[in-house]
Amino acid sequence: MTHQPKLIIGLLGYGVVGKGFYNAVKQTPGLNVVIKKIVIKHRAKARDVDDNLFTDDVEAVLQDDEINTVVELIDDAKAAYALVKKAMEKGKAVVSANKKMIAENFEALMYLQKQYRVPFLYEASCCASIPILRCLEEYFAFDEVKSIKGIINGSTNFILTKMLNSQLSFSEALAAAQKAGFAEANPALDVEGHDAANKFSILLAHGLGCRVHPREILYSGITHISKADIDYALKEKKTIKLLASAQKTTDGSVRAFVLPCFIRQDDELCHVKNELNALEVEGVFLGRQIFKGKGAGAYPTAAAVLSDVAAVQKGYQYPYRKLQEKSTGLKNDFLLDVYISADQLTKIKISDFKRIKEVQSRLGIHYVLGSIEAGKLLNTNWWKQKGVSLFVTEITYAQNNLPVSQSVTTNELAEISM
Amino acid sequence: MTHQPKLIIGLLGYGVVGKGFYNAVKQTPGLNVVIKKIVIKHRAKARDVDDNLFTDDVEAVLQDDEINTVVELIDDAKAAYALVKKAMEKGKAVVSANKKMIAENFEALMYLQKQYRVPFLYEASCCASIPILRCLEEYFAFDEVKSIKGIINGSTNFILTKMLNSQLSFSEALAAAQKAGFAEANPALDVEGHDAANKFSILLAHGLGCRVHPREILYSGITHISKADIDYALKEKKTIKLLASAQKTTDGSVRAFVLPCFIRQDDELCHVKNELNALEVEGVFLGRQIFKGKGAGAYPTAAAVLSDVAAVQKGYQYPYRKLQEKSTGLKNDFLLDVYISADQLTKIKISDFKRIKEVQSRLGIHYVLGSIEAGKLLNTNWWKQKGVSLFVTEITYAQNNLPVSQSVTTNELAEISM
Repeated sequence: MTHQPKLIIGLLGYGVVGKGFYNAVKQTPGLNVVIKKIVIKHRAKARDVDDNLFTDDVEAVLQDDEINTVVELIDDAKAAYALVKKAMEKGKAVVSANKKMIAENFEALMYLQKQYRVPFLYEASCCASIPILRCLEEYFAFDEVKSIKGIINGSTNFILTKMLNSQLSFSEALAAAQKAGFAEANPALDVEGHDAANKFSILLAHGLGCRVHPREILYSGITHISKADIDYALKEKKTIKLLASAQKTTDGSVRAFVLPCFIRQDDELCHVKNELNALEVEGVFLGRQIFKGKGAGAYPTAAAVLSDVAAVQKGYQYPYRKLQEKSTGLKNDFLLDVYISADQLTKIKISDFKRIKEVQSRLGIHYVLGSIEAGKLLNTNWWKQKGVSLFVTEITYAQNNLPVSQSVTTNELAEISM
Repeated sequence: MTHQPKLIIGLLGYGVVGKGFYNAVKQTPGLNVVIKKIVIKHRAKARDVDDNLFTDDVEAVLQDDEINTVVELIDDAKAAYALVKKAMEKGKAVVSANKKMIAENFEALMYLQKQYRVPFLYEASCCASIPILRCLEEYFAFDEVKSIKGIINGSTNFILTKMLNSQLSFSEALAAAQKAGFAEANPALDVEGHDAANKFSILLAHGLGCRVHPREILYSGITHISKADIDYALKEKKTIKLLASAQKTTDGSVRAFVLPCFIRQDDELCHVKNELNALEVEGVFLGRQIFKGKGAGAYPTAAAVLSDVAAVQKGYQYPYRKLQEKSTGLKNDFLLDVYISADQLTKIKISDFKRIKEVQSRLGIHYVLGSIEAGKLLNTNWWKQKGVSLFVTEITYAQNNLPVSQSVTTNELAEISM
């Protein structure tokens, strides 16, 4: 372990995580690592470190054969992919934290690793500080993973914690998250659930051997959660979490979603607060493992990047073992027990429900409790429109074989048709 | 990752975990692993598998050059060490779950690995299913670990859970644990804290770079916990856990103990019940990581052994990175805030306290609340005698620089001298 190749790093991006990574490297003794160049957009901007390190010309890194490792920490997924591709073609190892870029270009990136025999590692892309990808690849290597469930977006969890515990509105909580540095200036990627879907796409591949583009996953965000929803949850002694959940069935197929859920106070995910992330991974032999740690922040993320750099130094590459076992892919044939609320009941498409347990439409409170097929939700958008919010009330993955129910009372139906 | 050397395994021991390992190997597709021989004590005993696999002659494994890997799963630490040593001398890789053997022979085992260039892995020795050693070695490779705290013995945690939640006495709870298969027929190793001390000794080396023999660690078990102690804890809205706790100070020295603790309901370790284990590892950059999983049971332990077998296949060896950084070793100069109860107050050596907050001695309830130096406890045994139990009330690692306090009232002192 002592004679490791020197890594000469070209760092792409110098935002919050980039700075954190630069400082972490500087403050870490015993690393045989040098950051030779830092590529940034705006050369002009004043920097807090040696100005000669910086360049706005990416070729200064790509064409420098001494640079054997590229650490990619820029926002723009498209630009990132183009640069990562070029770096790998040049035979450089790449470490990235760009979940969107990875989730959307997964096959291409696997091909590039094989083709150019270079490590491509991205632990920091999923749950920042939690060592989940390495554990799934190595520790669960020979144990079949039956399910993965967790909180994988720090900023939405921070916002939900404030909405539930401090009675803040969504916009107030979002402002607090931005103030605390746990939400981007443009928070859409987080609060609309895209970020969680990107991460889950990566986790499904490494954990359940199920490769799907994020857009194939049933997901939503937390933007339309109303005061009434919060009150309903608290009345039911539940809390609200944006959960990513997936289950592998005996035939190898996977059922998955990323949706806001009502969870009981005795569920341990209930205790995962603010920017923390947590994942429950259940193996056939290992049983239920829980990983919990900081899901956001400069240093937790930078440290995960650093651990990948150390792994590159050892020539580590992901075996993608679960993908070799091949699952039969994603199925959306299961029923979700949901609570769907709206500012007008007419926004809720009652006919899409497979079964209705309760309809409430009075005193300005409108909601429907019932069961709806995941595939139905995936193919419609009415439940994502402004004023409407959907919550999973019970995670069952029940198969869709229920008779259409008549449990709505005429009185309630009368109200619906109003 | 696809062309891995075939492992021909000699399995030592066929107890609960040995059987679990054998079955796990049989049920795992894609393993390039064969169990060629199983060494057991009593050849005669009827077995549920191919009888030709079994032998009571260990040489059948040691002298078989085709066998390149030994999986050691026997109880007797002394015998185990002798066998492991011989196997390594023969150039065989070794996987073990024997925490006592490893903790007591740590240096010798490190030497043997170097000398004979063979992997020696033991993930299953610490917290069964939790992948803690690999994470400490690889993921925390370049992040300094500031502290480790956790529940690392499943059977004592099972017993304490039953004592607190089901109001069972220690002996009733122990019987329940044995019935559930979470305690040995001879439970001393677990309930007296030896097992936790052995594990913690291993964790201190891999996590904090502090190598100490288990006997150098301040520890005790749970055997003398009384109904009165339980009532006191519940009255204080606390629960009781046998915690292993260690902290690294800026000078690199380590302060550590394994003792029963009163912990608050809002402490997440409070939710770690029955046979579950949990570890909180705090890194300078990574922040607080929590690992939680099954700490006992045939399959969780066998699966950890299997993950080591997979690692052997990749030629993995522990780098012992934290030991290379060298800490200045264990210090016992810190004060512990404790509650010590006894069936007779005279059993409590008041003069050993640095400070006394409260003395209670009436209606058959006798206890002292105060501060006592860790080193003092390490060098005395009165607090371990029958009828006496000690609990840490607050984990502070406060330095011992307090003035001796006069806070005991004459009235209380009068009672003490009774």
